[in-house]
Amino acid sequence: MDIPKLVEPTSRTDLRTRAAYFVSDSTGITAETLGSALLANFPSVNFRRHTIPFVDTAAGAQRVIGEIQRAASEGNEPIVFATVKSAEILRELNSSGAVVIDLLGGHLRELEASLGTTASEQLGQYHGVGDIGRYFARMRAVEYAIEHDDGQSMRALDIADIIIIAPSRCGKTPTTMYLALQYGLLVANYPLTDDDFPSDGLPSTVARYVEKCFGLTTTPLRLSQVRHERRPDSTYSSLAQCTLELRRAEDLYRRNRVPFLNSSTKSVEEMSAVIMQSMRLRS
Amino acid sequence: MDIPKLVEPTSRTDLRTRAAYFVSDSTGITAETLGSALLANFPSVNFRRHTIPFVDTAAGAQRVIGEIQRAASEGNEPIVFATVKSAEILRELNSSGAVVIDLLGGHLRELEASLGTTASEQLGQYHGVGDIGRYFARMRAVEYAIEHDDGQSMRALDIADIIIIAPSRCGKTPTTMYLALQYGLLVANYPLTDDDFPSDGLPSTVARYVEKCFGLTTTPLRLSQVRHERRPDSTYSSLAQCTLELRRAEDLYRRNRVPFLNSSTKSVEEMSAVIMQSMRLRS
Repeated sequence: MDIPKLVEPTSRTDLRTRAAYFVSDSTGITAETLGSALLANFPSVNFRRHTIPFVDTAAGAQRVIGEIQRAASEGNEPIVFATVKSAEILRELNSSGAVVIDLLGGHLRELEASLGTTASEQLGQYHGVGDIGRYFARMRAVEYAIEHDDGQSMRALDIADIIIIAPSRCGKTPTTMYLALQYGLLVANYPLTDDDFPSDGLPSTVARYVEKCFGLTTTPLRLSQVRHERRPDSTYSSLAQCTLELRRAEDLYRRNRVPFLNSSTKSVEEMSAVIMQSMRLRS
Repeated sequence: MDIPKLVEPTSRTDLRTRAAYFVSDSTGITAETLGSALLANFPSVNFRRHTIPFVDTAAGAQRVIGEIQRAASEGNEPIVFATVKSAEILRELNSSGAVVIDLLGGHLRELEASLGTTASEQLGQYHGVGDIGRYFARMRAVEYAIEHDDGQSMRALDIADIIIIAPSRCGKTPTTMYLALQYGLLVANYPLTDDDFPSDGLPSTVARYVEKCFGLTTTPLRLSQVRHERRPDSTYSSLAQCTLELRRAEDLYRRNRVPFLNSSTKSVEEMSAVIMQSMRLRS
C-alpha cells in the first residue's frame, strides 16, 4: 500500500526576504516568542531570523549593530525586535538605521500609569530562576515525566495531575514533557495497545484514576504516516491497523467519559493549553 | 552535619494585590510570556495571575468580562494583557472598564508600516503546528533526549548536537529537555561519577565527541541541598563529597577545554541560551 509522504513546506525562495533580529538583554525567549507571533501575520515575507541574547552593554549593542548593518548591506532590510531595559542600549540600536520594535518600553509605561509605581531598575529577569519553589517543582516534574513515560512506571500515579492515554505515536510524550517543563505539572502517560481493547473499561492500571485521564487521538492517515517513519511497511503502520486502533481508543474514551482531543492539527503548545483548560489546571 | 534548607520565598500577603489576566484567542503562551516578563518589573505588587486561552468569540469575551468584573468587585483591580487579533473582541475587553494592554495591535501596525503590507487575517497562529518539518524535528529531539538521558544509551552520539556532562544533580536533565523541546536540538547527557576522575581525560564514551561537550557545575552548598532532597544524610549529599566532585569536574572541563557554566543561579532557559550561544547553535 502506498502511504503518502509527509508534506514538506514549499520553497520560499520566491518570497521577499527580510532579516529579523530578536535582541535581548536576557535569554531572548520573550523577544523570540512575541516577535515570531507577530511575524506569523506576514506570510508573504520570508524572514531570516537571528536571536542575540545577553546584549547588556554598549559594546554588545555595537556588535549587534555591526550584524544588522551587514544584513542591510546584503539587501535583507532588517527589523529588530528588542527586549532591553536600558534606554542607552535601545538608543544605540535605534541609531543603526533599522526599524526597531521595542517590545517592552511602551507597555512598561502603560503599566506604570496603571499601577501608580515605577518599574524596578534591578528586576525584570522573568526567565531567571525566580521563585525557587516553582523552579524546583518544574525540575521534579521533568523527572516524574521521564520516569512515567510510556507506562514505564506505575509507581506514584496517585500524585499525578494528569495521565495522558493514547495509542502509540499520537503525541503523548512531547505533550507530557511540555506540561512538565513549562507548568511543573506531574504528568504520566500510558499507551493503549491491542491488549487493552477486548474490555470496555480502561486498562486496570489507570482505571482507578479515571478522573485524571485525558485521551489523545489523531487521523488514521496522519498516524500511519508517523508510524511509517518508525517502522516502514509494517502492520503497525498500516492504515487498516491505525484506523482500528483509533476507533477503539475513541470508543474507550467515550464509554469512560475521558475527555480527549485530536492531535493531528495541533502543536504540543495547543494540546497542553486545551488539556489544562479541560482539567481546570490553569487558573 | 547541618545542611541549610532551601529558602522558600517570603509571604507576599503584605503587598498590594492586583488581578492579572492573560487573554488570548490562541494558547495564551505569548500573552503569559510577555505579560509575566513585564510584571516582573513591579516586585512591590502581588499579582494574581489567570490565563484564559481560546477567546475567539464575542460570547467568550463576555465570559472573560464577567470574570474580570468579579475580580474588580473583590478589590483586586484587574489588568488585562491581550493577544487577540479580532478588533471586535478587543473592543469588548476594553468595555470591561479594566486596563487592557494590547500586546499585538500596536506592533502589528509598526510592522505593516515597515513591511509595506497588511497583516493576514487568517494566520498568526504562531503556537500552531506551523512548519511540519520543524515540528517533527522537535518531536524526534524529545525522544532522543529521553533515550540519551543520564548516559542510558551511547547509541547515535555521533548525531548529537550537544552532550551535556556534569556530576549528578547539576541540572543536566531539565536543560536537555528544554533544548530538545524548544529548539529541536539533539541533546544527550552523561553523568560524571567518581569512576571518571582517576584519569585526566573525559570518559571514553564521550571523549571522541569532545567538541560537542558542554559541562555544568554548581556551588557545593547548592549541590548538597539538592542531593539532600533525594538522599538525606548520605555521603552522596555531604558537603565534602559535593565539593570534591565539583572541583574534579571543573578541572576536567578546563583540562579538556570543555566550555562550562555554573547552574546554581541560572534557570533552564538561561542555561539553554548560554549553551546555544557558546556552541553557536542559535543563529
